[in-house]
Amino acid sequence: MADTNRTDFLIGVDLGGTKILSGVFTNSLECIGTAKVSTKSQRGIDAVVTRIDRCVRDAVDEADLSMKQVAGVGIGAPGAVDFNAGTVIFAPNLEGWKDVPLKKDLEKQLGVPVFVENDANIAILGVQVAELKSKPKNVVGIFVGTGIGGGLIINGEPFSGFNHTAGEIGHMVLEVNGPKCGCGNKGCFEALASRTAIFQQIKAGIKDGEKTLLTEMLGDGLEDLRSGDLRKAIRRGDKFVARIVESAAEYIGIGVSNLINVIGPDVVVLGGGVMEALADEMMPTIIKTAKDHAMPGTMKGVEIIPSKLGDSAGITGGAVLARRESKSKSS
Amino acid sequence: MADTNRTDFLIGVDLGGTKILSGVFTNSLECIGTAKVSTKSQRGIDAVVTRIDRCVRDAVDEADLSMKQVAGVGIGAPGAVDFNAGTVIFAPNLEGWKDVPLKKDLEKQLGVPVFVENDANIAILGVQVAELKSKPKNVVGIFVGTGIGGGLIINGEPFSGFNHTAGEIGHMVLEVNGPKCGCGNKGCFEALASRTAIFQQIKAGIKDGEKTLLTEMLGDGLEDLRSGDLRKAIRRGDKFVARIVESAAEYIGIGVSNLINVIGPDVVVLGGGVMEALADEMMPTIIKTAKDHAMPGTMKGVEIIPSKLGDSAGITGGAVLARRESKSKSS
Repeated sequence: MADTNRTDFLIGVDLGGTKILSGVFTNSLECIGTAKVSTKSQRGIDAVVTRIDRCVRDAVDEADLSMKQVAGVGIGAPGAVDFNAGTVIFAPNLEGWKDVPLKKDLEKQLGVPVFVENDANIAILGVQVAELKSKPKNVVGIFVGTGIGGGLIINGEPFSGFNHTAGEIGHMVLEVNGPKCGCGNKGCFEALASRTAIFQQIKAGIKDGEKTLLTEMLGDGLEDLRSGDLRKAIRRGDKFVARIVESAAEYIGIGVSNLINVIGPDVVVLGGGVMEALADEMMPTIIKTAKDHAMPGTMKGVEIIPSKLGDSAGITGGAVLARRESKSKSS
Repeated sequence: MADTNRTDFLIGVDLGGTKILSGVFTNSLECIGTAKVSTKSQRGIDAVVTRIDRCVRDAVDEADLSMKQVAGVGIGAPGAVDFNAGTVIFAPNLEGWKDVPLKKDLEKQLGVPVFVENDANIAILGVQVAELKSKPKNVVGIFVGTGIGGGLIINGEPFSGFNHTAGEIGHMVLEVNGPKCGCGNKGCFEALASRTAIFQQIKAGIKDGEKTLLTEMLGDGLEDLRSGDLRKAIRRGDKFVARIVESAAEYIGIGVSNLINVIGPDVVVLGGGVMEALADEMMPTIIKTAKDHAMPGTMKGVEIIPSKLGDSAGITGGAVLARRESKSKSS
């Protein structure tokens, strides 16, 4: 087993507001072990760093390896990240995270090189390299979940802009007098088309007397409503849920065309929990609406596709980052 | 006068839907002669190319030079441009312009190297190099005139994306059910805040019985209404015009914050005829609205400034392009 002594295994970590995912990858980006722990950011920054450390070691153990065989760790954090400094500048969904030297702290605990990027940028990097085989030069990633996040690949590289905040597409205003967003403004993309927005519209509709299979499936309070339940209800003929999901898909289509008009990417990739559950239902409307709204000439040859990586986009992108950076260090 | 025999003078050309501007520049980007002719695109592509040729020669004559002393011509065209091929892929405001080999055709007429770029990209290149001294790496240019155009500098270079159409910010939807745009959609940025949109709102208001000094100044039909007239009316206390201009400034502020959220530039530059006439009136509202709408952290240290180059941004950028490309050819 000479091979397993080589230090060319890579770890990708997806640090989220509620959970931490980690995955061990071979140099050819095959995933050979994963682990998951809850984030518990209310316990403080040090506790979260220790939980990341544990999650990484759990995945390594799962893959029957030791940390000595790991070349590097790439981690995506949910906020503004200074890649060169290895710090998380701020992360609204992690309590108290401001200027956290995550690279330094984790390297001390893990004893291997650590590279930190924004979570959406790392996810789109994973999609670009592992799924699209690095062919497109300019890629926009739209991740529709609790909120809506965006990741940009420009000229083949993750792009994060001046304050490391590029890709905050969830707060692009699409409807000046639209519904209130968590950020305090009105009509943001994520106030119109995120899972949170879709669920609010469903609950408001039920209050107004709309009939839906969801209350049969889950009870009147819609406890534990998940994106997958929407798919089930639509497939069983629920017109009310279909209409709300259709409306969200139209807004996503407008968001896509705005981004195509402004950035002019080769490919737009849609990911995140909502897309994973509802791609079949939403993609035709997203593509049609984007085509209706994009300027002539801007859409020619541009692909609008759902990612197949699903929840693994983040950990895959982490491994891609770790592979690239470990290589550039050793060469 | 040995100096004037050197072939290091540069020409910038701004090809617009209604007029062609040209300027002769020294190597240090001082403008020493300009010329202007109408475009008359209804006469056909060849006629326009001949008019560009004449406009360039007029400016050279104005500067007491000959074409032999010109190192190169940089020209901005109003549409999608393939810089490497030197072709205008399409230009909605120039009749019949589709895949026009402008570089080749003009080089044949002028006998000097010609470089073609999108007009908004060339204008923001002019601002970036001549006005901002190439300091910012990522710049978004917003040009508010008859329509709203955008130019992007990414990592120090003009960025035009996959179909050479990046920066079509005028058709970014800001209000899904907003006023109809010339492009057929509703609520586009330029349907809310361009000169065309402002003038339409003023004319509609007058029809509805609003009182304004503009009818005193220009007659009931508002013949020859120009952006400068709005400034005059506001300064003389016209509340109706002030309100409409204020509303346009708010939409521009939302457009600015969308672009900051998505792209994360170091600097946002506002130019074009409307900004040239009304920067003092509009900038405070634009900046305030942008700050209110941008996500926390995205605005830190980001400058939002009006360009001082005004109408000269395009010809200056053309000279910058010609200087850079002539250098890279001769080195």
